[in-house]
Amino acid sequence: MKKLILSSIFCLLCYTCITVTAQNADSLAIKRIFSDALTDTNSYHNLRNLTGQYSERLAGSAQSLKAVKWAELVLKNMRLDTVWLQECRVRHWDRGEKETGKVISVKAGNHNLSICALGGSVPTAAKGLSAKVVEVKDYDDLKKLGREKVNGKIVFINHPADPALYNTFAAYGGVAGYRVRGAVQAAYYGAVAMIDRSSTTSHDNFPHTGIQHYADTVNKIPALSVSTNDADNLSRWLKTDPDLNLFLKTSCRELPEVTSHNIIGEIRGTEHPEEIIAFGGHLDCWDICQGAHDDGAGAVQTIDILRIFKSVNLKPKHTIRVIVYMDEEMEQRGAKAYAEAAKGRKHIAAIEADRGGFTPWGFSIDASDEQIKKVQSWKNLLLPYGLFYFEKGGSGVDIRDLKSQGVPLFGLVPDSQRYFDYHHSVNDSFDKINIRELQLGTATMAALVYLIDTYGL
Amino acid sequence: MKKLILSSIFCLLCYTCITVTAQNADSLAIKRIFSDALTDTNSYHNLRNLTGQYSERLAGSAQSLKAVKWAELVLKNMRLDTVWLQECRVRHWDRGEKETGKVISVKAGNHNLSICALGGSVPTAAKGLSAKVVEVKDYDDLKKLGREKVNGKIVFINHPADPALYNTFAAYGGVAGYRVRGAVQAAYYGAVAMIDRSSTTSHDNFPHTGIQHYADTVNKIPALSVSTNDADNLSRWLKTDPDLNLFLKTSCRELPEVTSHNIIGEIRGTEHPEEIIAFGGHLDCWDICQGAHDDGAGAVQTIDILRIFKSVNLKPKHTIRVIVYMDEEMEQRGAKAYAEAAKGRKHIAAIEADRGGFTPWGFSIDASDEQIKKVQSWKNLLLPYGLFYFEKGGSGVDIRDLKSQGVPLFGLVPDSQRYFDYHHSVNDSFDKINIRELQLGTATMAALVYLIDTYGL
Repeated sequence: MKKLILSSIFCLLCYTCITVTAQNADSLAIKRIFSDALTDTNSYHNLRNLTGQYSERLAGSAQSLKAVKWAELVLKNMRLDTVWLQECRVRHWDRGEKETGKVISVKAGNHNLSICALGGSVPTAAKGLSAKVVEVKDYDDLKKLGREKVNGKIVFINHPADPALYNTFAAYGGVAGYRVRGAVQAAYYGAVAMIDRSSTTSHDNFPHTGIQHYADTVNKIPALSVSTNDADNLSRWLKTDPDLNLFLKTSCRELPEVTSHNIIGEIRGTEHPEEIIAFGGHLDCWDICQGAHDDGAGAVQTIDILRIFKSVNLKPKHTIRVIVYMDEEMEQRGAKAYAEAAKGRKHIAAIEADRGGFTPWGFSIDASDEQIKKVQSWKNLLLPYGLFYFEKGGSGVDIRDLKSQGVPLFGLVPDSQRYFDYHHSVNDSFDKINIRELQLGTATMAALVYLIDTYGL
Repeated sequence: MKKLILSSIFCLLCYTCITVTAQNADSLAIKRIFSDALTDTNSYHNLRNLTGQYSERLAGSAQSLKAVKWAELVLKNMRLDTVWLQECRVRHWDRGEKETGKVISVKAGNHNLSICALGGSVPTAAKGLSAKVVEVKDYDDLKKLGREKVNGKIVFINHPADPALYNTFAAYGGVAGYRVRGAVQAAYYGAVAMIDRSSTTSHDNFPHTGIQHYADTVNKIPALSVSTNDADNLSRWLKTDPDLNLFLKTSCRELPEVTSHNIIGEIRGTEHPEEIIAFGGHLDCWDICQGAHDDGAGAVQTIDILRIFKSVNLKPKHTIRVIVYMDEEMEQRGAKAYAEAAKGRKHIAAIEADRGGFTPWGFSIDASDEQIKKVQSWKNLLLPYGLFYFEKGGSGVDIRDLKSQGVPLFGLVPDSQRYFDYHHSVNDSFDKINIRELQLGTATMAALVYLIDTYGL
């Protein structure tokens, strides 16, 4: 009995020793990752180049095709095991001339509006369109007005994002639907165009664009976004003169589809090269900005994970792979191409970075409860880097198609307070990037990749 | 027995009900606090006024005296129960003319240096001083050089803050000592002036100032700060020409002490008016900036706690009091005056906000383990607002003198990644403030005040 007790104690001590040693080794590896990311500021360097040279890189545009070549060169220069392009056909929607919006009113005065066409919109007639405006807060308002009061008019959806919500993604989620489907709803009642208050809690002077979708059942009418400040102004002018005229002119057009690419690079695993830990952000961005936070940040951060593994001499057991996605903003054609090609290949995890290059909090995890618990068991290793958030939730639209293949999905969650000040607007520029915050996002994902590679899920 | 079991179950149910109801009431109160702070953006409004009208408000300056009147008026307009000024005598150090720093070298070229005098420095001679430069990384370097190689020269302490540290306060703490005591150390070996690399991990073109202290045992020599970029430049030029000359001219001076004030306002407690929950930030800032993050933010946030209590109709049981402190940057004379006056009064907690107006994480707590545990038991109420940090640690220099009176102390802890990019430099301006991040700091402290008022410590 005494022997049994002694041997049990010995086993326990060994186990404790091994656990402590492993924890120390992990803690040191993660420290090396963060130190490297905060001193060799390669994500920031790449993002400066990308945004400086290839701004306005909406999928299908000449800029986006040049950006693909740039990303391929960046990966090739990193001397990875494999770098390749993965083809996808993308829409080629083009904004055309800068849009015009003019309020014309004897009572309220004449004013230029800060507007832009929404992604995928049809244009106005070449000479523009002029009509009266009806303001609504939501679809209930629109229904109450009915066809009689809407027909032949421009519907102005003025639904402010709720600033009282702590979670800015929730505030955005509460209004983005008006942008996406507002034109369909307005057309149903006979509207000739739809202008939507920009989907942001910020009070600013520039329109925030984004995708909008038509339905086959109703007319396609021009769909535009107006800056939040001009939405407030227009609302005021409409109170002064409900019969004011709004002149709108856009020349956006849908060009033939174009061949584009995801850019993929990987370091082969030393033990399980056939098993993949994938991570990525998207290269494309809206055509009115540099796409620094959305999503140049995610693209350069996920590329830089591979550099860090080499730099701190971590040799992953599984293959670790970056996918720089094409066409997140319009149709996610890159995501679909990747998910299709991934069938039959084993992905043990996929991570997406597409919420801006801000101080990271942790991850939103779309996986089984057991897998989430396992990730939460690593919390003490990550808390010294301000990482406290490891909760069940959505990941990101570029990796979500891998879910049906049983892949555990992770979305990098950074502090979100500033994101929608910039999102889809001219304000999403490189000067809004803080070097340390950006680099910390890189390190956070590299640390998660290290832990998944070491312990599985 | 059955009766006993039933009555036990009944008690348990009652207890659970009461606990759940209390939790719900707390949760709702905290939600109202955050909603109010994110919609009625009064902290931001006040900060715009303060920084726009009263920038460069170093204690003793005319600007600081005007700012005191401004803060008094703000508090009086809030219709609090009591508003008063608390006198303190402060130093009046004045920078004089903008400083000159010129590298003069045939080999390395002539260059202007971006420099400024450190707070409390003596001036150079009126015509300036010109001398050779010795560069050191630390005091060991200085000791090795010894009097022979240092005497008659300008000591240039070029010790970069360590960017690899996640915690930027640790990086700052690793170098700020050279700023504070570098002139004393250099003078000990006969140096004629000391210039210190700015205490920041950022690479920028403006000097970051801050207090420095002399010792009675050695000569007082001019003490200056040089921008990090020019520290790198000077180091390079010294490699090209170790005998280059550096011309320095400063005209700072110590004027007679001035009477200034803390500004105090309070809402009297309904049940324990004699027991005080105190909170504050400091009104003074360095004389080369607007002091938006340091510490206009803390001043307006703590003022705004009182507004929120009135706005959401919370009637505190204890007296809740803001102290807008004077003279944090030089000598903490306001802090000393308050602590002296507080003797014999019961403070049940004191909170300081002096780490910038960034997204809040929680609090650093200088209190007993039991008190910290109690605060941690509120975590679930605060986590929905990203507040995860409630750890033992220092509070802030304006409230630390209350520690000897047994007061539990709290320092608001925001995300620190950007703070030292701005700290004590011209870059600490209102445009670096994000409205939501600032307002969240206000709400975070108001929520803590509410919980302490409700449950004690």
